[in-house]
Amino acid sequence: MNEATRSVGIGIVGLGTVGGGVVRLIQKHHDDYVAAYGADLRIVRACALEQSRAEELGTGAEAFTTDWHDVVSDPAVDIVIELIGGEHPATEIFESAFAAGKHVVTANKALLGRHVEALGAKAAAAGVQIRCEAAAGGGIPIVGTLEHDLVGNQVLTIAGIMNGTTNYILTRMAAEGLDYSDVLADAQRLGYAEADPTADVDGFDAASKIAILGSIGFRTRITTDDVYMQGIRDITSEDIAVARDMGYVIKLLAIARNTDEGVDVRVHPAMIPATHQLAAVNGAMNAVFVVGDAVGETMFYGAGAGSFPTASAVVGDVLSLSEHISRGTAPMAEPEPFGRNLSIRDIEDLSTNYYIRLKVADRVGALAETVDAFASKNLSIKQVMQLDGGNEDSCSVVFLTHTCSERDVRAAIDALKGASCLQKIGSVIRIEDVDAWSDGVMDN
Amino acid sequence: MNEATRSVGIGIVGLGTVGGGVVRLIQKHHDDYVAAYGADLRIVRACALEQSRAEELGTGAEAFTTDWHDVVSDPAVDIVIELIGGEHPATEIFESAFAAGKHVVTANKALLGRHVEALGAKAAAAGVQIRCEAAAGGGIPIVGTLEHDLVGNQVLTIAGIMNGTTNYILTRMAAEGLDYSDVLADAQRLGYAEADPTADVDGFDAASKIAILGSIGFRTRITTDDVYMQGIRDITSEDIAVARDMGYVIKLLAIARNTDEGVDVRVHPAMIPATHQLAAVNGAMNAVFVVGDAVGETMFYGAGAGSFPTASAVVGDVLSLSEHISRGTAPMAEPEPFGRNLSIRDIEDLSTNYYIRLKVADRVGALAETVDAFASKNLSIKQVMQLDGGNEDSCSVVFLTHTCSERDVRAAIDALKGASCLQKIGSVIRIEDVDAWSDGVMDN
Repeated sequence: MNEATRSVGIGIVGLGTVGGGVVRLIQKHHDDYVAAYGADLRIVRACALEQSRAEELGTGAEAFTTDWHDVVSDPAVDIVIELIGGEHPATEIFESAFAAGKHVVTANKALLGRHVEALGAKAAAAGVQIRCEAAAGGGIPIVGTLEHDLVGNQVLTIAGIMNGTTNYILTRMAAEGLDYSDVLADAQRLGYAEADPTADVDGFDAASKIAILGSIGFRTRITTDDVYMQGIRDITSEDIAVARDMGYVIKLLAIARNTDEGVDVRVHPAMIPATHQLAAVNGAMNAVFVVGDAVGETMFYGAGAGSFPTASAVVGDVLSLSEHISRGTAPMAEPEPFGRNLSIRDIEDLSTNYYIRLKVADRVGALAETVDAFASKNLSIKQVMQLDGGNEDSCSVVFLTHTCSERDVRAAIDALKGASCLQKIGSVIRIEDVDAWSDGVMDN
Repeated sequence: MNEATRSVGIGIVGLGTVGGGVVRLIQKHHDDYVAAYGADLRIVRACALEQSRAEELGTGAEAFTTDWHDVVSDPAVDIVIELIGGEHPATEIFESAFAAGKHVVTANKALLGRHVEALGAKAAAAGVQIRCEAAAGGGIPIVGTLEHDLVGNQVLTIAGIMNGTTNYILTRMAAEGLDYSDVLADAQRLGYAEADPTADVDGFDAASKIAILGSIGFRTRITTDDVYMQGIRDITSEDIAVARDMGYVIKLLAIARNTDEGVDVRVHPAMIPATHQLAAVNGAMNAVFVVGDAVGETMFYGAGAGSFPTASAVVGDVLSLSEHISRGTAPMAEPEPFGRNLSIRDIEDLSTNYYIRLKVADRVGALAETVDAFASKNLSIKQVMQLDGGNEDSCSVVFLTHTCSERDVRAAIDALKGASCLQKIGSVIRIEDVDAWSDGVMDN
């Protein structure tokens, strides 16, 4: 370095999987960061529940505290890294850090998914930054890409596989023909799924991430509560096999589209062509597909979770802030909150093709009765398939619709519930119109 | 915008495919850029050979010039966009722009592939920046990703499909079983290949790009001349079919690995597992696979060329510089040139598995003679396959080696040339050890 620089004080709250990764990564590369970027990162405060964890990581007794207030109030701390997750006390940590003039780096998708706009406004008012590369996509550089690299574009679509647990489960179901519950149990045993898998398998985790990415990409407010959510619990190996025969794979997608009728934002299992880039994203890996009006189709692939991948994103944010802190210049403050307030489109206005699997009584007239129910709501059926493998009393029937609205599908399913032959609504899976993602791309 | 801002003067040299895209993109989104980023971009000078082109694009008669000096000397120009390609007069344009205190945004891979370090030093001395997102990967955000988002990592491997023409040709050869020359002719007719395809099909274009990305990713000097190059002219549909039977696809890869024995940097056709992410990148699309020690495996996919995709990268760079110019603050100067000077590993030290296809006389003893030649150089053969489809006098034989050095393979091929049965060395294709790309990733 040619210039006089000062060290950068890091205060870290939370020494779990990601926090531990951040500490170890900074320890491993401390001298590299000094040599390459003039960034002398010092972990001056570290907050965790147990001192033994800090000892294990070697952050030093003098840095250790169990009280996050010690971190945000320490004048030696320039950057607060919040890695405890959840809304409280994370909100209070953010606000106290801003009040003390400190930047915040975070992986907290639950908090930002709900409150990115309000927290952004508070950071802007305090002249500091929130950086959240790790909060959406884990290690995948996607927040920075949307905030910086793709700014020449109007972003049209962001669609991704943003949850590793569900992608791991669906990948193994597809590869091994196993059922959901069997793979889930195995995933829990192997550490790919939590004991309580709700946040992953029901789509909450992916919903938070698409809310954050949609907000940034479209420069408008989208909160987790705006996101329609449907998880993967109803998907069977039968659905996956039928999809394969039709040239599709089933993925849990998080989708945000900036349409003329408002922002279409949703998380649900979807069938996509087996030849699509996202179809090749397997196991616990994640990928975010972004369509911009100039750049066209892009995709960003990597590990969506894990200790060091997430730490890579956190430390990238820290180094970006440090560039300025080291030289004594102020980083740019958080930009003003979004100038736009685009409306959110009702999920019932979605128009696509649907796959509907029913379990019906195996008797004469059953099929006619279901077809009548669909017809009564003007649902146009493209194909009906009776699947093998029922027992004497019941069989599975799959209906593929022509393009129709979610509203009409819901009405038809309500009508079906009155059909005497119906034993169970098996699954309702949208066949995603991936070509529509590129509507509005400029013609070369 | 809350702050007083000023407009940003753009001078553009070259109004070809990319230049035209840049002009049209700025025209389309001018008001969006003002609203979103406070960036009022004005194209104040535009240099091209023909005024009719400027008229077609609507850049205005008063902005038009045929002399690039008018662009770099205009005090109203803050940023010079160089889009003419080649080494001269691009070098003089860069140097004159720096001398006048102007930043340069460029897509010039030929120039930067050879001189990124020297030009970077001159920009740094002048206190301005060179930005080159468009020079490697076209529209794919990869330069910014390496310069900013992945800085927490030691980058271990950068490997990509970085040339759309060759990927288009190989994809169609694979899908349709066609031969190279037939697809090339078709690609030329359709505009996917130039009349003189040398720079693409012989690997020069990809070599420039991997030199730039390797330099940035590893923070060391790599020039195009350091890159071993082999093109795709020798690949046949036969090779592709055999590869497929073995579970591989053939792609023209540009690879840079930061190894203990030096930087391994090369462009050549390679066999990779059909399940690898890069194997699914088809047609004219590009992708860059990056392995960092913390983040692990990542991939960045998109259009590597084309008017608006490349313009997306150029305008992203312009907006990034504009953030500062609009507010009257100085953008950071170009960082000092690379602190490291890693050695380049000799291609003969490469160690991998090889696929070698020979055309030999179809007579008793021919196979033994070729096997003897390999054995004389201690080349360990794993498998020999005689292919169908020879004529009465000749047949194709494929040899797969165990792991061996390039040096030994070359010696064996020299020895083969003395074998009386040999009619032709068909193709020599490296089977890339993609698992080795992740050597050194931190264990979660």
